[in-house]
Amino acid sequence: MISERPEPPPADLPEPTDDDYRLGTHAYTNEQRTAVLAKLEEHLSRRRGRLLGYQTNLSLDGHASLGRFLSYHINNIGDPFVDSHYSLHSRWLERAVLEHYARLWHAPLPLDPTAPQDGDGWGYVLSMGSTEGNLYALWNARDYLDGNALVRDEISGDASCRTTYIRAKHPDDNPNAYAPVAFFSQETHYSHIKAMRVLDIPTFYDLGGSLYPGQCPLEPAGAGTQTYNGWPLGGVPTTGGDEGPGTVDVDALVALVDFFAAKGHPVLVNFNIGSVFKGAYDDVEYACERLRPVFAAHGLVDRSVRFDPDDPDRVSVRNGYWIHVDGALGGAYAPYLEKARDAGLIKTASPVFDFRIPEVSSIVTSGHKYPGAPVPTGIYMSRAGSKLRPPSDPAVVSSPDSTFAGSRSGFASLAMWNHLAQFSEEQQVRQAAEVLQVAEYTADRLRNLSDLLRERGEPWAEDGIEVGHGDHALSVWFQQPRAEITEKYSLACVPLNLGGRRHDYSHVYVMPHVTRELIDELLDDLARPGAFDRSAEGDADRPPLPRDHIPQAPTRTAPSPRH
Amino acid sequence: MISERPEPPPADLPEPTDDDYRLGTHAYTNEQRTAVLAKLEEHLSRRRGRLLGYQTNLSLDGHASLGRFLSYHINNIGDPFVDSHYSLHSRWLERAVLEHYARLWHAPLPLDPTAPQDGDGWGYVLSMGSTEGNLYALWNARDYLDGNALVRDEISGDASCRTTYIRAKHPDDNPNAYAPVAFFSQETHYSHIKAMRVLDIPTFYDLGGSLYPGQCPLEPAGAGTQTYNGWPLGGVPTTGGDEGPGTVDVDALVALVDFFAAKGHPVLVNFNIGSVFKGAYDDVEYACERLRPVFAAHGLVDRSVRFDPDDPDRVSVRNGYWIHVDGALGGAYAPYLEKARDAGLIKTASPVFDFRIPEVSSIVTSGHKYPGAPVPTGIYMSRAGSKLRPPSDPAVVSSPDSTFAGSRSGFASLAMWNHLAQFSEEQQVRQAAEVLQVAEYTADRLRNLSDLLRERGEPWAEDGIEVGHGDHALSVWFQQPRAEITEKYSLACVPLNLGGRRHDYSHVYVMPHVTRELIDELLDDLARPGAFDRSAEGDADRPPLPRDHIPQAPTRTAPSPRH
Repeated sequence: MISERPEPPPADLPEPTDDDYRLGTHAYTNEQRTAVLAKLEEHLSRRRGRLLGYQTNLSLDGHASLGRFLSYHINNIGDPFVDSHYSLHSRWLERAVLEHYARLWHAPLPLDPTAPQDGDGWGYVLSMGSTEGNLYALWNARDYLDGNALVRDEISGDASCRTTYIRAKHPDDNPNAYAPVAFFSQETHYSHIKAMRVLDIPTFYDLGGSLYPGQCPLEPAGAGTQTYNGWPLGGVPTTGGDEGPGTVDVDALVALVDFFAAKGHPVLVNFNIGSVFKGAYDDVEYACERLRPVFAAHGLVDRSVRFDPDDPDRVSVRNGYWIHVDGALGGAYAPYLEKARDAGLIKTASPVFDFRIPEVSSIVTSGHKYPGAPVPTGIYMSRAGSKLRPPSDPAVVSSPDSTFAGSRSGFASLAMWNHLAQFSEEQQVRQAAEVLQVAEYTADRLRNLSDLLRERGEPWAEDGIEVGHGDHALSVWFQQPRAEITEKYSLACVPLNLGGRRHDYSHVYVMPHVTRELIDELLDDLARPGAFDRSAEGDADRPPLPRDHIPQAPTRTAPSPRH
Repeated sequence: MISERPEPPPADLPEPTDDDYRLGTHAYTNEQRTAVLAKLEEHLSRRRGRLLGYQTNLSLDGHASLGRFLSYHINNIGDPFVDSHYSLHSRWLERAVLEHYARLWHAPLPLDPTAPQDGDGWGYVLSMGSTEGNLYALWNARDYLDGNALVRDEISGDASCRTTYIRAKHPDDNPNAYAPVAFFSQETHYSHIKAMRVLDIPTFYDLGGSLYPGQCPLEPAGAGTQTYNGWPLGGVPTTGGDEGPGTVDVDALVALVDFFAAKGHPVLVNFNIGSVFKGAYDDVEYACERLRPVFAAHGLVDRSVRFDPDDPDRVSVRNGYWIHVDGALGGAYAPYLEKARDAGLIKTASPVFDFRIPEVSSIVTSGHKYPGAPVPTGIYMSRAGSKLRPPSDPAVVSSPDSTFAGSRSGFASLAMWNHLAQFSEEQQVRQAAEVLQVAEYTADRLRNLSDLLRERGEPWAEDGIEVGHGDHALSVWFQQPRAEITEKYSLACVPLNLGGRRHDYSHVYVMPHVTRELIDELLDDLARPGAFDRSAEGDADRPPLPRDHIPQAPTRTAPSPRH
């Protein structure tokens, strides 16, 4: 699976255009349709062979045999563990996939999956990728922290008829008790900003800048970091800033959480396992060790929530924090790095992030990134005791509406299963070790190239090409080369802010389809004179950083002053 | 496409079980994997032939040839009209599909799709079906109505750096000016209740019951309708209640909207085209004619929104209402019914619902329902001038994050295109007419059966079987038969509340794969003695209506009294 060299792309053919596919009042003949679809396939096959810039495994040959299932609409509508009257489903495979990830992430498997214990894993296979999973996790987190009734909470007869959320009234001595605040690092995926907006959850910098101007507990931010009344915009700082490996600065995180927990707020923390640009792993285990006494000191452990306004004696005991792990990329392979280390294949592994850590509430991973899948998909998993009460159990479906999507792709579960069934654990472990080794090979080769360019005084790369690579990361970043190279290898390009000056970077993501030979080919192209000369490209002379680099607008609520 | 009889199902074979698909540390051999996947396919092919209960077209033979695209991860990440560095995409096909629906729904096509005019259509192909589309529409609606900056609004330099939403402060004389209220009928899909919760948009009955107890402008609700301080729970009443065709009661809707508009609230209305159980079409055109003077009378037309707190002179002129059409089922074929009527194939068509009505802001339809698709998909379309400002333009993607999903299924666009390319408009028109005729045939045959059962004094069906069928609806409902029949035909079952008494119904959805022969087979089964005898089924003696029939908890905000 890993080391087969992709076929050489066919000779240059015209790219598809909008005109090839326009739909009118006449049907395409079969010949016409086949011809333009072949043109699309040519484009895809030509680009697939050299795609290096995105965290997407393109070794998907094992999936072509699923073509016969395209004659069905497979829909796992409703809950994965409660069958619906809609009979064309693949829940058997979905449940096997969920069990697999529960084991991989050390979530206890329920004895009776239809009635799991509070600590057991519960989850579902996503239809829209990790954005769906993150949205669902943060929705669940919001409603858990702001005192709504959960699945496990028995509600009184009157309350169950109410149209408003069944939720807690805050205690008299703490108006912030049900006002959660979100923490996430500056390396966090852009979908989190979107989720904060959709769900109207305020971020720490938003609330801090509005309510506590100038009181940020962190050291003043360095030059080039934008702030809002002294609070760092865009998230919790990462270790070493833009020049560092992209892991959250645990000291800074703990200081920020402590500040808001002391004000009485419940706490929502997002960690990244394989962050979007640098592929960084937040040290979830260490951060949770440091956060544990903070949570305890401020009454956020096992607090009593009186969620039922009609019956104040009804109490739900739950934590005042929610730790979400966005493992969109890393959640699917980091556990194998750990096993590879235990088997002596590699020396060290990335930090532990899973349900062995008692504070971890939910984990998300993408199926189309590291495992590889023809459609966006992934896994959402949480602890059953924290599951939110679905808004309704639609009789027409006869399975609770306990997921985000409603109609859920049964084909996605089939693709996930088909992938996992083809590989033994031993193969997965070897693959993870090998992918990491190719990433380290890439970083080494780029560093050597950087030295070479510096030595030969290459114009546009006189200071080398600023190669970056964090521990165990599958991403390696370096100075952005000219457009024909970024285009040839579909390299993602991102501007970073170093000491107030804009630097343009590209990155390579080493996924299972990426071979050493392909890396060598890229390095040959990068070593050519002028490979980093972007002077002819209109945008080489851009301002320090575009405004849209700053995440906007995480909350709708104009916060009112609180003590 | 319509009238091919599905192949007879194979002889009875054991159903798949969880044990068939369990994943362990060993891989499946190819033989093992092929065998259990064949078992899944047998299950699917056996059930597909007779599936009658869901609004899902299972004529999907034209898609099996797309199997070769399963070797690629096709991802239309970002905006459909702005290409990304991720080169394995199918945006050419997505844009063709969007153009098709823009024409079908009479949205002006932009001359330059990357810079559409305010009135032009803008949209994207969904990865998660209409639930995604409805969530996105209602998110956009919320932020449009509560005074946030839109794409077209130029914001001041300072405002663009702010972390809070760029949004309006309400005028001194109307504290409700940016507090939208949602209206939707009792036949509305359960995903709307979910969306109201996620987005924290209060419903009219929620706000009415809390703030205006006993002031509901409607006639007191009939027996069996649950109310909250005099406001009808679950939505705007439908014409004739549970016994009626499921279309929204326009008089009731107008009275309710008028009540809240007079209090200064902006208005969010959802209409259904092909509602979930009854397949009903709200008369959007007539309702908008009636709402138009209400909107005008209460200053909701072209109101000036001062959205930029840093620059009060900056004004965005926009409406104080948003009309969303959930055409999950009907949006894809109702336009062809209109053309079929014009061509003389049928006598009348369902009401106009599309962008010809100036008030209509957004429309959603599902690809996997009427057109049919192997994965959940669909279309979201709105007017470009109302598009919300994306939370961020992630440089790594190099295309604006202007959709809900982020990573978007390029395979879904391919499947939608592949379907549409195979059929001329004339074929689509003929198919829509024929499907409607089969639905009417089904209703006729069931009514005849009902008479027959009444005449012969059939136990359990002495009063007939309460057949219901609304104008142009593809759903036909009737008394729920015994379990072996609902299971054989995968019939959806729903309890309705008639005069305070629970009645259990099933429905048939006539989709393009449903033939008269299959209807005849169902009718043969239903005519057998005892077909409606559910006395041996544990749940025949249930209480009047389960609590979960009542939609719960649409809002988190405990509303505070307002004048």
